[in-house]
Amino acid sequence: MRKVLLIGAGRSSSSLITYLLDKSDSENLHLTIADVSLDLAENIVQNHKNGTALELDIFNENERTKAIKNADIVISMLPAHLHLNVAKDCLTFGKNMVTASYISGEMKALNEEVTKKNLIFMNEIGLDPGIDHMSAMKVIDSIREKGGEMLLFESFTGGLVAPECDDNLWNYKFTWNPRNVVLAGQGGTAKFLQEGRYKYIPYHKLFRRTEILTIGDYGKFEGYANRDSLKYKNVYGLDNILTLYRGTIRRVGYSRAWNVFVQLGMTDDSYTIEDSENMSYRDFTNSFLSYNPNDSVELKLRHYLKIDQDDIIWEKILELDLFNPSKKVGLKNATPAQILEKILKESWTLKEEDKDMIVMQHLFGYELNGKKYQIESSMVCIGDNQVYTAMAKTVGLPVAIAALKILNGEINTPGVQLPINKEVYDPILKELAENGIIFTEKNTPYLGYNPEIING
Amino acid sequence: MRKVLLIGAGRSSSSLITYLLDKSDSENLHLTIADVSLDLAENIVQNHKNGTALELDIFNENERTKAIKNADIVISMLPAHLHLNVAKDCLTFGKNMVTASYISGEMKALNEEVTKKNLIFMNEIGLDPGIDHMSAMKVIDSIREKGGEMLLFESFTGGLVAPECDDNLWNYKFTWNPRNVVLAGQGGTAKFLQEGRYKYIPYHKLFRRTEILTIGDYGKFEGYANRDSLKYKNVYGLDNILTLYRGTIRRVGYSRAWNVFVQLGMTDDSYTIEDSENMSYRDFTNSFLSYNPNDSVELKLRHYLKIDQDDIIWEKILELDLFNPSKKVGLKNATPAQILEKILKESWTLKEEDKDMIVMQHLFGYELNGKKYQIESSMVCIGDNQVYTAMAKTVGLPVAIAALKILNGEINTPGVQLPINKEVYDPILKELAENGIIFTEKNTPYLGYNPEIING
Repeated sequence: MRKVLLIGAGRSSSSLITYLLDKSDSENLHLTIADVSLDLAENIVQNHKNGTALELDIFNENERTKAIKNADIVISMLPAHLHLNVAKDCLTFGKNMVTASYISGEMKALNEEVTKKNLIFMNEIGLDPGIDHMSAMKVIDSIREKGGEMLLFESFTGGLVAPECDDNLWNYKFTWNPRNVVLAGQGGTAKFLQEGRYKYIPYHKLFRRTEILTIGDYGKFEGYANRDSLKYKNVYGLDNILTLYRGTIRRVGYSRAWNVFVQLGMTDDSYTIEDSENMSYRDFTNSFLSYNPNDSVELKLRHYLKIDQDDIIWEKILELDLFNPSKKVGLKNATPAQILEKILKESWTLKEEDKDMIVMQHLFGYELNGKKYQIESSMVCIGDNQVYTAMAKTVGLPVAIAALKILNGEINTPGVQLPINKEVYDPILKELAENGIIFTEKNTPYLGYNPEIING
Repeated sequence: MRKVLLIGAGRSSSSLITYLLDKSDSENLHLTIADVSLDLAENIVQNHKNGTALELDIFNENERTKAIKNADIVISMLPAHLHLNVAKDCLTFGKNMVTASYISGEMKALNEEVTKKNLIFMNEIGLDPGIDHMSAMKVIDSIREKGGEMLLFESFTGGLVAPECDDNLWNYKFTWNPRNVVLAGQGGTAKFLQEGRYKYIPYHKLFRRTEILTIGDYGKFEGYANRDSLKYKNVYGLDNILTLYRGTIRRVGYSRAWNVFVQLGMTDDSYTIEDSENMSYRDFTNSFLSYNPNDSVELKLRHYLKIDQDDIIWEKILELDLFNPSKKVGLKNATPAQILEKILKESWTLKEEDKDMIVMQHLFGYELNGKKYQIESSMVCIGDNQVYTAMAKTVGLPVAIAALKILNGEINTPGVQLPINKEVYDPILKELAENGIIFTEKNTPYLGYNPEIING
């Protein structure tokens, strides 16, 4: 039996675990699921004959090194900042390793030793980062193989609610960490390239500078810019590219309404609101508006942000109950962002029968023999239920597939790496497609960066 | 001769030095002016018989302790973060000390020892902080003495150009550190109290939430909220006050136009612009706007920020030459804020004959015997020229007066303190008035927080 150690059995591990246990007989695998909670691990293993649950405190060096020593390959699904000790042990004991997190500087620094020991530390092999790298590099490499030169790369990803469960005005529910959704776009100006020009969008304008995209039968979506577009120049070897843009997908109209929270200051996580525990939702909203006892909180907000009475934004705000004088915030020393998160959770939490949806779209513009072309590559994945979510599938399956292929020697180039090489992405994308994660490519006329599709 | 040591001979020291040298015969003073630049110090002393220039590197412990040991009182006009070593030496050698800077936590921590040694470390005795404390506490104490209870305290200060030299559309020139003007309002949400309610304004809305004030013959001004209003609750003992607001004064219309820079992202100091050195002013402006080769940078900006063609904002923007395609930024790896500062300096630098102006206004609302009253206290100070600026007078004179009164034993309560006690503010305000820094008090009907004076 080949021994696979999975550290961290959170909700993104369900598909990963099922994939490996399903193949455990044919592939001769034994899977140890290690988590700080033994209950959680046992609950997942369900007495599968090729699975073992293990209680593991990763800060306990003895426990950790013992578990790693005993494995043939280690999968770390821990939070990103906790990978390093696992990585160092893997290096010491000569074990391959797989993670779905961004490569940290410290992880990268292990590359020389990892390569010298002929080991593979595969990172960024979840959804985003992960499937985005693989599906983009497949097209970029094919363009280059036929002699084309890349002009444009735009890439959008979003986690949404499936269309059949989409029943609020925002067309949005929390399918992942709500806190990250509230803080989205903060922490730095969004930077990208459009037709050779560097463009900068400050946070308070981010949600008013969306782009529109259409994804097959699923209709129109919008994307707002990520902070980090420029780093892909280097990662994908796009040094001379004219347009480089990465964005987050929402349903059309979400961002324009979200902008209300940004403008008011409700997404701020840097200070606490006075007496937040005892204030009502209405008090919370009013604390961002001028004092004026003669006007309603409603009218003050509409006037301040110039929202017409028949604007759909207004209905979206009302749907969240932001003016309710009876509902109490009930959080001590809370930041505006924490209060907003609580209020949104009441409206945006998935119902038991709700399914999530992952949407990804890349646009590739290139020139070949003096002519310009464009390829659009799209993927939509819908969750089966609230265990096998689209998020769990798209994050977990590439990790599981990569781990098995490393174990089987099909992926064998050593080093601390991400999945941008053909040897890695080709077989994994093939197997993802067999598991329903399918990219549809479409040739379109070259649009370049078409100003008509910019939204205000 | 009593020996006064002044450390730091920057441009805010001119009035301070002149005051002390003018009184040096009658008061039997010798003034040593210590600066890292001997030239600067000598140039200021001008061979005055009661003055000595001293080259002093305050990081050189020998030089520093020697100078301090030899003094009877020490005035530190160093940047705020450099006071502490001076303060520790003053404690060691038993010297009184005066600064115009905010008391740091470390400075405050010396209070017990300072008091035990019967020393006075007087801080925050410049303009703002300084004159604001003294002039406010004088009125607050008088209200309390007659049994009144404070309901409202609003306080505004601004450094502007004198009316007779006010010749640009912004009614503004740099009379102090331009960098601070560009970064004004950043670093935290503005927090204040209005009629018992806490209010929060995020940076990107700060310049759209101004209040209007009228100062005697000088007409209308506007104020935008400072970050730190709430701390004055404690400092001035205003624990039960309903309205507490501190703001920065500009001429009416400045903030609405400044908001253009905020909205675009031009005041951001957190990242550097790609190839800033070689870009034109027009390129700089365009980097915050959508790519669209069919539209002018002008129209894109107007459309983005919804500026009507006949809006005075537009004339203000044009006055700064922000669309010039020929002028180069010429700054390597510059942040947007650094580039904006450079561009503004071309339009907003004082001409040789220009004078500056300091404006301060406090509003005090209170209740006495069941009736409500309001007092308005205003001060305007205009500079003589570019050496004896209003800023140098209002910062330097209270420092100089305080130093002499401490030396003469007229101020004698020991401790690390700010000038909020009658013993301190009464004689100093009296002498400031003799020097032309005069507060005019006016009783007005109680307006409370009058919503009619809020601007949008």
